[in-house]
Amino acid sequence: MDIVIIGAGNAATVLGTQLWRAGHIIRQVWGRSAEAAAALAQQLDAESCTDWNAINREADFYLIAVSDNALPSIQQNLRLPGRLVAHTAGSVSKDILKEVSGHYGVFYPLQSLRREITVVPEIPFLIDGNDETTKEVLVAIAGTISSQVSEAGDLQRLQLHLAAVVVNNFTNHLYTLVESYCRKNGLPFHYLLPLIRETANRLQQFSPQQVQTGPAIRNDTNTIRQHLELLENEHPLKEVYEMLTQSIRGY
Amino acid sequence: MDIVIIGAGNAATVLGTQLWRAGHIIRQVWGRSAEAAAALAQQLDAESCTDWNAINREADFYLIAVSDNALPSIQQNLRLPGRLVAHTAGSVSKDILKEVSGHYGVFYPLQSLRREITVVPEIPFLIDGNDETTKEVLVAIAGTISSQVSEAGDLQRLQLHLAAVVVNNFTNHLYTLVESYCRKNGLPFHYLLPLIRETANRLQQFSPQQVQTGPAIRNDTNTIRQHLELLENEHPLKEVYEMLTQSIRGY
Repeated sequence: MDIVIIGAGNAATVLGTQLWRAGHIIRQVWGRSAEAAAALAQQLDAESCTDWNAINREADFYLIAVSDNALPSIQQNLRLPGRLVAHTAGSVSKDILKEVSGHYGVFYPLQSLRREITVVPEIPFLIDGNDETTKEVLVAIAGTISSQVSEAGDLQRLQLHLAAVVVNNFTNHLYTLVESYCRKNGLPFHYLLPLIRETANRLQQFSPQQVQTGPAIRNDTNTIRQHLELLENEHPLKEVYEMLTQSIRGY
Repeated sequence: MDIVIIGAGNAATVLGTQLWRAGHIIRQVWGRSAEAAAALAQQLDAESCTDWNAINREADFYLIAVSDNALPSIQQNLRLPGRLVAHTAGSVSKDILKEVSGHYGVFYPLQSLRREITVVPEIPFLIDGNDETTKEVLVAIAGTISSQVSEAGDLQRLQLHLAAVVVNNFTNHLYTLVESYCRKNGLPFHYLLPLIRETANRLQQFSPQQVQTGPAIRNDTNTIRQHLELLENEHPLKEVYEMLTQSIRGY
């Protein structure tokens, strides 16, 4: 397929690269920053532009991979009647694109995408479209770069986006607090990496509820007390510790 | 080495099996439950017993892999003068074993061990001992089943145990809340597994602070509001969402 990528950030880079590797032709990359657009375009054997009016009108698919708060400006500036367009946002309705084209939808990667990552992880896609044909074509495109492609409406996508925030952003925040705690106490954070990986990997085999362990669930007040003593001056880790211990005990 | 395993639970099973696979001779398994002790002993070509007095006195190493709250009873009942003994607890001082033998220490696996897991994960060990020789021998034994063996005193071990509770127990609790949320809303939790794995795996390459993303850190109040609306009746996930969003914003 002939594709135009709108955006030049993390999602645009990772998805553009995956589509290019799968054999699609990337015609053009549009970016607000000329530099970022040119850099990505070069990687994808594409042209670049920063002007809305310079966007090629003949492509088969326009992938709008911009940040959520840039989508209203797309809605105002982009008109591609008859062309297939889709955005990549988890928490924005597909209908934000309804003025852009009559064939619009969502191409949402349920994954944390960072252009610096050299080994691209498995990317499940949640697809939506304003009609059946649009959905089918978007599912087919996603199928060229992923083996996990599903349909999901605006509400389901928002719910899974919320779920993703919890398992990715919140978990990563816990890692950040612990890394800082380790640094302050001269402990090597990397000692914890096998445990962190195992905690994630064993979900392939077990429900998290089955494998919950630790002082909170066994009501081991002695260990909890020892931990809280260590955390005496550890704001904000202490608050997080108390709150999640409470949550596990009450669950 | 000739080893006696005290305990027949998760840690005893996984560590006993690893030691047996590494070529050590497991003489005996002691367990409170005759059934559990016999089952593990059979796997390890060992004898089993439930009586303190039946414990073989001639082994080179006694691995005390029991739950934290069973350690005081070990302290009272087990006397192995001159023998090498070590417990596997993260938050208990090595000195709980000082009446058991003059050569005592800690053999702490910084990992979540479950006997049902078929692929045993990498297990970093934190070793302590009451004298240099004891430490050296324990480090050497750990080295037969792990490539990550370090020394750590009672305080450092307790601090790393606290860190392990956060990255394992708390993270797993977040997964549990999300799994329940998905179930209630008819969403497949397994869609999130690639994201969960990626969140853990990228720490090989990046500090968690570098890769923090999401509505909280970019102060995206619109998305946060949408999520909180979805969580209206979702106790306790809503409390956790609010609290961790707060913690990320204030960090």
